[in-house]
Amino acid sequence: MNRRDGRLYNQMREITIQPGYVKHPHGSALISFGDTRVLCTVMVEEKVPPFVQDRKVQQGWMTAEYSLLPAAGTVRNPRAGYGNNQLKGRVYEIQRMIGRALRSAVNLKKIGQRTLLIDCDVIQADGGTRTAAITGTMVALELAVKRLMDEGKLTENPIETRVAAISVGINKGEILLDLDYPEDSTAETDLNLVMTRDMGIIEIQSTAEEGHFSKVQLDQMLKLGQEGIEKLFVLQDKALGIKK
Amino acid sequence: MNRRDGRLYNQMREITIQPGYVKHPHGSALISFGDTRVLCTVMVEEKVPPFVQDRKVQQGWMTAEYSLLPAAGTVRNPRAGYGNNQLKGRVYEIQRMIGRALRSAVNLKKIGQRTLLIDCDVIQADGGTRTAAITGTMVALELAVKRLMDEGKLTENPIETRVAAISVGINKGEILLDLDYPEDSTAETDLNLVMTRDMGIIEIQSTAEEGHFSKVQLDQMLKLGQEGIEKLFVLQDKALGIKK
Amino acid sequence: MNRRDGRLYNQMREITIQPGYVKHPHGSALISFGDTRVLCTVMVEEKVPPFVQDRKVQQGWMTAEYSLLPAAGTVRNPRAGYGNNQLKGRVYEIQRMIGRALRSAVNLKKIGQRTLLIDCDVIQADGGTRTAAITGTMVALELAVKRLMDEGKLTENPIETRVAAISVGINKGEILLDLDYPEDSTAETDLNLVMTRDMGIIEIQSTAEEGHFSKVQLDQMLKLGQEGIEKLFVLQDKALGIKK
Amino acid sequence: MNRRDGRLYNQMREITIQPGYVKHPHGSALISFGDTRVLCTVMVEEKVPPFVQDRKVQQGWMTAEYSLLPAAGTVRNPRAGYGNNQLKGRVYEIQRMIGRALRSAVNLKKIGQRTLLIDCDVIQADGGTRTAAITGTMVALELAVKRLMDEGKLTENPIETRVAAISVGINKGEILLDLDYPEDSTAETDLNLVMTRDMGIIEIQSTAEEGHFSKVQLDQMLKLGQEGIEKLFVLQDKALGIKK
Amino acid sequence: MNRRDGRLYNQMREITIQPGYVKHPHGSALISFGDTRVLCTVMVEEKVPPFVQDRKVQQGWMTAEYSLLPAAGTVRNPRAGYGNNQLKGRVYEIQRMIGRALRSAVNLKKIGQRTLLIDCDVIQADGGTRTAAITGTMVALELAVKRLMDEGKLTENPIETRVAAISVGINKGEILLDLDYPEDSTAETDLNLVMTRDMGIIEIQSTAEEGHFSKVQLDQMLKLGQEGIEKLFVLQDKALGIKK
Amino acid sequence: MNRRDGRLYNQMREITIQPGYVKHPHGSALISFGDTRVLCTVMVEEKVPPFVQDRKVQQGWMTAEYSLLPAAGTVRNPRAGYGNNQLKGRVYEIQRMIGRALRSAVNLKKIGQRTLLIDCDVIQADGGTRTAAITGTMVALELAVKRLMDEGKLTENPIETRVAAISVGINKGEILLDLDYPEDSTAETDLNLVMTRDMGIIEIQSTAEEGHFSKVQLDQMLKLGQEGIEKLFVLQDKALGIKK
Repeated sequence: MNRRDGRLYNQMREITIQPGYVKHPHGSALISFGDTRVLCTVMVEEKVPPFVQDRKVQQGWMTAEYSLLPAAGTVRNPRAGYGNNQLKGRVYEIQRMIGRALRSAVNLKKIGQRTLLIDCDVIQADGGTRTAAITGTMVALELAVKRLMDEGKLTENPIETRVAAISVGINKGEILLDLDYPEDSTAETDLNLVMTRDMGIIEIQSTAEEGHFSKVQLDQMLKLGQEGIEKLFVLQDKALGIKK
Repeated sequence: MNRRDGRLYNQMREITIQPGYVKHPHGSALISFGDTRVLCTVMVEEKVPPFVQDRKVQQGWMTAEYSLLPAAGTVRNPRAGYGNNQLKGRVYEIQRMIGRALRSAVNLKKIGQRTLLIDCDVIQADGGTRTAAITGTMVALELAVKRLMDEGKLTENPIETRVAAISVGINKGEILLDLDYPEDSTAETDLNLVMTRDMGIIEIQSTAEEGHFSKVQLDQMLKLGQEGIEKLFVLQDKALGIKK
Repeated sequence: MNRRDGRLYNQMREITIQPGYVKHPHGSALISFGDTRVLCTVMVEEKVPPFVQDRKVQQGWMTAEYSLLPAAGTVRNPRAGYGNNQLKGRVYEIQRMIGRALRSAVNLKKIGQRTLLIDCDVIQADGGTRTAAITGTMVALELAVKRLMDEGKLTENPIETRVAAISVGINKGEILLDLDYPEDSTAETDLNLVMTRDMGIIEIQSTAEEGHFSKVQLDQMLKLGQEGIEKLFVLQDKALGIKK
Repeated sequence: MNRRDGRLYNQMREITIQPGYVKHPHGSALISFGDTRVLCTVMVEEKVPPFVQDRKVQQGWMTAEYSLLPAAGTVRNPRAGYGNNQLKGRVYEIQRMIGRALRSAVNLKKIGQRTLLIDCDVIQADGGTRTAAITGTMVALELAVKRLMDEGKLTENPIETRVAAISVGINKGEILLDLDYPEDSTAETDLNLVMTRDMGIIEIQSTAEEGHFSKVQLDQMLKLGQEGIEKLFVLQDKALGIKK
Repeated sequence: MNRRDGRLYNQMREITIQPGYVKHPHGSALISFGDTRVLCTVMVEEKVPPFVQDRKVQQGWMTAEYSLLPAAGTVRNPRAGYGNNQLKGRVYEIQRMIGRALRSAVNLKKIGQRTLLIDCDVIQADGGTRTAAITGTMVALELAVKRLMDEGKLTENPIETRVAAISVGINKGEILLDLDYPEDSTAETDLNLVMTRDMGIIEIQSTAEEGHFSKVQLDQMLKLGQEGIEKLFVLQDKALGIKK
Repeated sequence: MNRRDGRLYNQMREITIQPGYVKHPHGSALISFGDTRVLCTVMVEEKVPPFVQDRKVQQGWMTAEYSLLPAAGTVRNPRAGYGNNQLKGRVYEIQRMIGRALRSAVNLKKIGQRTLLIDCDVIQADGGTRTAAITGTMVALELAVKRLMDEGKLTENPIETRVAAISVGINKGEILLDLDYPEDSTAETDLNLVMTRDMGIIEIQSTAEEGHFSKVQLDQMLKLGQEGIEKLFVLQDKALGIKK
């Protein structure tokens, strides 16, 4: 029990969501899962990329970028643009996942010919940054849409469901919810789960880092993840001032 | 039934594996799933990258790159290195998956201080290129290891299991095995599955492109995928001249 | 008076310095001047760049990077590494200034064969980010040095003086201390001043954006800047827990 | 005689041309000269680059790219786009030569406001890849033009002549036709020759790698090259189903 | 005295300005300060960048680039575009200074919807290249404007004042005008000064490289710099054939 | 006759070679052919690139870079390193030719474990820049070798022959020596010829820009080029102070 700082196998770290953390973007939230802290922002651009503009049905677009601040982790993470312009493959994998997750919450045909630009910047990294980013960006996105509606730019709410995400893993044979960095880096199997408010599955990414895993273990991980995600929706509600 | 060229929902396309397709690399195979054709090669470099060299336990390394030839698809795929140096995120996602899959088949501590460089070049694309790449590279890797053993560079076979991969999807509510491009591009959900010879799970990537999917559908997709992968192991055996 | 939110011409915005804001780097501080918020960190690398290694006298090195988060300002600031790898000239100018300023506080011959890597990331921008970065980094640097001494890696304090920086400008003919963004973007002349604890000048950058300025105006700006910097040293003391 | 695998000084390797090797591009051909194998494709883009659009006389454009697959040669050829974005000078030299050669076969004023994009990808390299690329692309180009005419996009055939190319060299003082890699890499002089169907010269590139060569040797090389090119035109005819 | 080749502390090196040094650009000048030689050119482009086009008031634009030829200094200066695409920060700092200095001489609203492209290429470097570049470009700019007026493209002269620049420094405690490379590289303090024809200040950049400097020293440096700049205006007049 | 400014078909433009034009590199020369002006320099680096270091026989290396100053031609030539990092293919073609030409003059085994870095920077372009660069660099190289011998770094002269180069072309059916830009840009055929002091051929690059050319025309061009090159060797002698 000690190795989780006293957390039970099915217990998430302390989670806080600070909406409106910065003033310039349409929506923003600072989310923390224990020592993991991610700044999630949504900015609005009144145009769409060419490949969207060319589509028959008029629609908007939403895309995500993810980055670690140089001093977010134990080893310095070199910036792009310093003779080191190739983003790491890991970054692409993560930001594509964030973009897909959030796009599944929104009806892009209802946001007009504009682009919602998501930025997830990891201020401090301690495991689970991608799932924290998805969960926090959902709050920033709600705020951004609210402001667009207040500004009269949208008349109908394009958000069709809410999404949240959590990581689960198998560490020394034990299935654990919400892995911190020491747990994650020694896990045998790693699963990231994204679900909607009505508990439909949006994305599963599950990889054996050592050996392989069984269907039974997969089922257990999914069950544990689902329980965590249910709690995240309550925290999002609270951050958004929604009473239930 | 017609929309699959007469294929049943649980039927894969015609699959061929041509081992030793090119002469310079240690191992190679040209694999085709219908019109999808991928050249998989394994070259050997007698050194390891610095981050591996620094590890306490001496080991080798294996890494993969994936690329579409410019004329592989219906729209030209621009080459990197022509004012367009940023690889697409999709490429990173795929080649990281290929590398992880193949590394799980090999004991890197048994390949010596060398790097196995996997290249998967898509000659023609018609859906399922990443899973074809994994399945074909496994054959090229067996050949490369065999040549290293013939050359006396390895005394013990470092391959601990075999891996193969297949795609499954939900298209118009129907669960289909081995989607071709028309099926894949209109699918609601997409699942890529990598398994070992003894049918352990190595990786699941499953994404809802439209709406979401249920646990029941996930279970059905995994079952169908597993059946396909069992057949792929037989085809690998045949290509490698292994009788069972 | 109103246009400065009630501030007098010689009054700085509310300034806070939060030392130890993130846990991984050796030293860190979050500094704010009104709505301008900059995260300043100092990481330690146990080696020096080649051009320093080749010098006759053994010494360490210190270098700075500066960046705006994408959502820090009113218009999104595109990240490097997305087909947009050229840093803007403004970024180079600023980070070179930060590096020079901090190097003038430290005796590099006393930090051993290591590099202190400064990162200044602007979380929110509202004018004066470069001078805030210098002032905040000085605090992070003190903390980093303290930790290096606690770890026994340094036996002698290499910091020979403290530095702080402030901006002054001429706006509609009036000389103003600590310009916020609306003031800065309409100023006729802009001056950035870096000074040491004993009020020696380290750097002056002064540019007429419109028309030119006179020696008399320069003298007035320097006087006002010096008064501001004296107050910044007191705030640094407080953040570092130094009583005077 | 042995060192040429039994070939006479004036004998080319076995040459095959496989038209329509891939299905997506308008025209394609896989050409082999012994172990050298090049995939040549021609794709059509319904626009022209700006510098062509600005010309007084309306015309189309044609341009070529050339690349070695990573495993095409004995040493791995690193891909562009992996922190290694600078194409090698050799690649530029070759693809510019291919583009010039093919443009001299076509009346660009007769292809409309479109661009023909040539891609030459070397699957396996064993000497003479650039001349194989030119000879094979001519076949792919004929097929692409035929398809454009079948589609009704062109009413008049823009191809005014056919081109083919061959290498000649001086190796240990002996003049040899169609050098393979072992011959080419030890040759004293190297000549690439491009000619039209009516045996006009389009391009000569001749370089002494060791010492220099005389006008007499140049004349002998040109004569031998011309004889080879005459045979290549027959092979192109055959691949295109043209009887003479 | 010897260490300045016999120059007094307030004496500049021999200065020559050769107007019209190259024929293609609208204006050009080769300026030398002793062994420092800079080719300054002004080319005209009949369009403005997008961020200028979008402004409410119609205006032109002027921008500067600065570069050292590879063999300009004692150590080879590697070219950009050779796997080394990141310009050095120093280059950005300098060319931004050149651009600002020259823009302050011109009323951009009077040059029409065109861009004046300044290029300063250092043929030989021996200290003071940035101030030489500003002083020389002023001459090239006068010539470019004259030619635009001769061509009838401008009817009113947009040049509202002339600018010139000089460096001053403190070396071994002595204040020196126009430092050559040996003096500059060992200076304690370095000041670059840009002034207008009527002796208004446009820019001061002053940095302590070692220790710090006092307000008294600053005043002395500015006084010496101003005297040098007065002489530079006379040399510009002479180069332009203006009698006074 | 007028269209050549009165020059006869076999007459080169006025040629001047100014040795030692800049002071820092080991050797330098400014060469002009009429309005074409190229600065050729040779710098020495006391190491060799890895691929040379790995060779069995110890040797040195020599490599060339070629660039046009931005204002060298009628249209501005954008610099690399400004979001435009891909060198043009033409640049690669030219600098590879320069490197090959000069390497054929020198015995690299006799220059020790060092690299001679050739830079050819075109100050003003008016046709024939690549051949001017080769001819001028030969002079710079002789000076660099002389200085290396004077410094005692070389005891034996590694230069085994001298090289020079000239362009010839067919313009409106007439064969012309040393084409200027107006002639070159309208030529039907273009030939660049590099020869050694004893009139051996080092390189021929001949391309039909329009139509094709015959063996007879090739022979005429080579003859004319050879006559021009003979005169260039005399001019090199003169520049180097060699009497014959």
